[in-house]
Amino acid sequence: MNATIFRSAIHIAAISGIYLSVAMLIPAFIDIYYGHRDWEIFLLSAFMTGGLSLATAAATRAGPPPFNKRMGFLVVNMLWISGCFIGAIPLWLSSMKLTFAQALFESVSAISTTGSTVIVGLDNAPPGILMWRSLLHWLGGVGILALGLFIMPYLRVGGMSFFKLESSDTADKPFARIASYTRAFLAIYVAITIICAVTYAALGMSRFDAVNHAMSTVATGGLSTHDASFGYYKSLPLLWAGTFFMTLSSLPFSVLILFVVRQRLDAWRDPQIRVFLGYLVLFSVAASIYLRLQNGVNFHEALAHSFFTVSSIISTTGFASDDYTRWGHFIVALAFVATFLGGCSGSTAGGLKAYRLIILFNSIRTGLYRLIYPDGIHAVRYGSMTVDADLQRNVFLFFITYVAISAIGAILLGLMGYDVLTAVSAAATSLSNVGPGVTPEIGPAGSFTVFHDAALYVLSFLMLLGRLEILTVLVILTPLFWKS
Amino acid sequence: MNATIFRSAIHIAAISGIYLSVAMLIPAFIDIYYGHRDWEIFLLSAFMTGGLSLATAAATRAGPPPFNKRMGFLVVNMLWISGCFIGAIPLWLSSMKLTFAQALFESVSAISTTGSTVIVGLDNAPPGILMWRSLLHWLGGVGILALGLFIMPYLRVGGMSFFKLESSDTADKPFARIASYTRAFLAIYVAITIICAVTYAALGMSRFDAVNHAMSTVATGGLSTHDASFGYYKSLPLLWAGTFFMTLSSLPFSVLILFVVRQRLDAWRDPQIRVFLGYLVLFSVAASIYLRLQNGVNFHEALAHSFFTVSSIISTTGFASDDYTRWGHFIVALAFVATFLGGCSGSTAGGLKAYRLIILFNSIRTGLYRLIYPDGIHAVRYGSMTVDADLQRNVFLFFITYVAISAIGAILLGLMGYDVLTAVSAAATSLSNVGPGVTPEIGPAGSFTVFHDAALYVLSFLMLLGRLEILTVLVILTPLFWKS
Repeated sequence: MNATIFRSAIHIAAISGIYLSVAMLIPAFIDIYYGHRDWEIFLLSAFMTGGLSLATAAATRAGPPPFNKRMGFLVVNMLWISGCFIGAIPLWLSSMKLTFAQALFESVSAISTTGSTVIVGLDNAPPGILMWRSLLHWLGGVGILALGLFIMPYLRVGGMSFFKLESSDTADKPFARIASYTRAFLAIYVAITIICAVTYAALGMSRFDAVNHAMSTVATGGLSTHDASFGYYKSLPLLWAGTFFMTLSSLPFSVLILFVVRQRLDAWRDPQIRVFLGYLVLFSVAASIYLRLQNGVNFHEALAHSFFTVSSIISTTGFASDDYTRWGHFIVALAFVATFLGGCSGSTAGGLKAYRLIILFNSIRTGLYRLIYPDGIHAVRYGSMTVDADLQRNVFLFFITYVAISAIGAILLGLMGYDVLTAVSAAATSLSNVGPGVTPEIGPAGSFTVFHDAALYVLSFLMLLGRLEILTVLVILTPLFWKS
Repeated sequence: MNATIFRSAIHIAAISGIYLSVAMLIPAFIDIYYGHRDWEIFLLSAFMTGGLSLATAAATRAGPPPFNKRMGFLVVNMLWISGCFIGAIPLWLSSMKLTFAQALFESVSAISTTGSTVIVGLDNAPPGILMWRSLLHWLGGVGILALGLFIMPYLRVGGMSFFKLESSDTADKPFARIASYTRAFLAIYVAITIICAVTYAALGMSRFDAVNHAMSTVATGGLSTHDASFGYYKSLPLLWAGTFFMTLSSLPFSVLILFVVRQRLDAWRDPQIRVFLGYLVLFSVAASIYLRLQNGVNFHEALAHSFFTVSSIISTTGFASDDYTRWGHFIVALAFVATFLGGCSGSTAGGLKAYRLIILFNSIRTGLYRLIYPDGIHAVRYGSMTVDADLQRNVFLFFITYVAISAIGAILLGLMGYDVLTAVSAAATSLSNVGPGVTPEIGPAGSFTVFHDAALYVLSFLMLLGRLEILTVLVILTPLFWKS
């Protein structure tokens, strides 16, 4: 590690801090529009963080930044960490009376598109605060898509190099390609948000709610403007709309881009899409049958709630249609396991993700064959492609650290006095960026206010780890990373 | 798969069935000695299972069996499955009024040295039944040691090829070596049992209890002759004795053998011993401090109970000194995580095992380095040895299937109506062959009577999977295994 890299990384983070500060003007205007005096807080925060970012950016200005892996890891970490702190400032200063740990937790939860909240009484919360949370979701979603499309494949974290956008046909014009993809992905992201908001409004949400929930949906975030989340509206059509848009937002954006930019349909054949939709339908149908038979819910209602809940968890969004922790042990077990699965690569969803599960499953099969025929040729496949040893190792590595860090997180929370299920569930839901847990206290009808500040710092760190695919953060914690 | 292999495997299982039937005479004598009429049951069972085994052995007699990997996998599965069924017969027919599922569960729990029980009222149970459970433990322990020393390294399951007994120096006389090691390991196993029984008796156990608990201890089993397990005796010295012998029995037997046969001390430098003892001490000290500070237990008592409980779980024994599920959330979280760890390779302990944890941890470190320097040379080490790619893959494979099967087991139990924590804990404690779970119902003060028959079959299968290192069982479930 040398000073140039460090300086450049700070510079880039500071520049993005300026943009984030400017974004604070949006909730300021919202508060002015709705006549809430918290607009001053947002303006103050914007000036403070904007000024600090500007000063830092000026102080660290230098020539073009070096471009290597260390720089990549460092920039990614700095961007997210500084974003989380800047995002926390207006929450901390606001009339909500949050401790700094709570404000930081809420900010990390928003930017990492997790969707856990420490705020109770959302229905009467200042509109600016609600909008700020949704905005952080939305920007966090943009950030993670850009990361997944352009940075992660290069850093080779967790097997994501698999999803490089085709590089062969336009290799002579890499930057033109990146520019065209960037435009495409931003256009698609904005388009989905608008269509989603219009749909929500048409189905009965207020315009303010529709915009907020749309931003939260496309980012697979999960923060809502009501304590009861989607349950507030008591509308099955809205649940189906939510299901559709949450699912859409968990699909690989690269597939959507190729479809939009080049009208290519073949990308839909990506096996992770089939598998992801497969377990979504399987879990939803199982849950509906259970709700119908055990709880006597009528069939359409059971289907709508099941599909909404399962897609909400598997897409790592975290909206709730009802308190599913009271639907019966089977549903809770299903929700607990679903917490780990996650969506597709190159989407805003977190979790283990479908493509990794496919590679893990195929490795098990291949591994068993190898035990029978040690000298045979046993390739691990992903669709029609062969997964090379390096990529397998990266996926294994991700899985192992994922499990290990869930366990360490749970132990830390246990040490702080929380019961095992709360500890395990909170650690898992944070690391997977899902949002609610599976106990009544931290479930969809509860909130993370049960956690004291020290626990919130642990959970914030887990959300950040999960969002940056764990290894990206662990890398910069190794001594080797900092050696010259 | 061809008929010769199948026939030979059945033959070997039938021969071992004859021995197991003869072993039933021991509890028969015990019941006669103590004047309990269940001796008839044991005699009847011995004749039934012995006769059936004899007939099967005669019917499947053939030339010398083929020796290949398929044969190895098949024989191991057949031995354990037939042993579990034969072991269940006297339990099923006894005056305990168990369903067949309960009897099978108890038998699998005993042979797999798990130690969960569906019998309540052990203090007044027929002595023959108690002895039979202990005997199954003890024989299951012998079986698993033989498997770990001689078969598993050859089958290359879960990275156990690492612990082949030195093969270079006497490669010209493999059978002489196996014979001398077999004698040594049986001698050590018997010696530990005797010393343990004498110690227990000296510290206050009745002779009957001392023998039973000694057999249960050396096998890291955990079935007791009292519902309150070690808590019955209210003796701290007994807890320390239990701690010592449970820990001793989780050490690699190959190290004990090398020490006894060749007076070699260097084998103690095996890193898994240091790591295993390390987390045992760490967890125990953490638990004692918690008990001292939070619950106000006096320090010696806190230490004795903590060391006993932690070594009981980590050695996958499952004795209890008290109901630790009521000691506080931190202890429960600690117990939950400890459930997964396990002892050393080539011992009677189950779980993930220390050497795998070392390899997994070192893979994480190496993996992170590789992300920074993709072109560097990054070897994964185990002590002074390099872990080759094949062995790493085997360890990963074991870990992935271990986690996946815990999850599938938990889902199945959830589907059957058990709450998440009970489901997850029961699945984990069964797969790790620990015994008690972390909820009051299935914890050290509870029993597995809360599970109905279908759930007991699932848990029995998990115990068998865990005992045979998972992959050994999964291999014979693949279609490839049965192809000609």
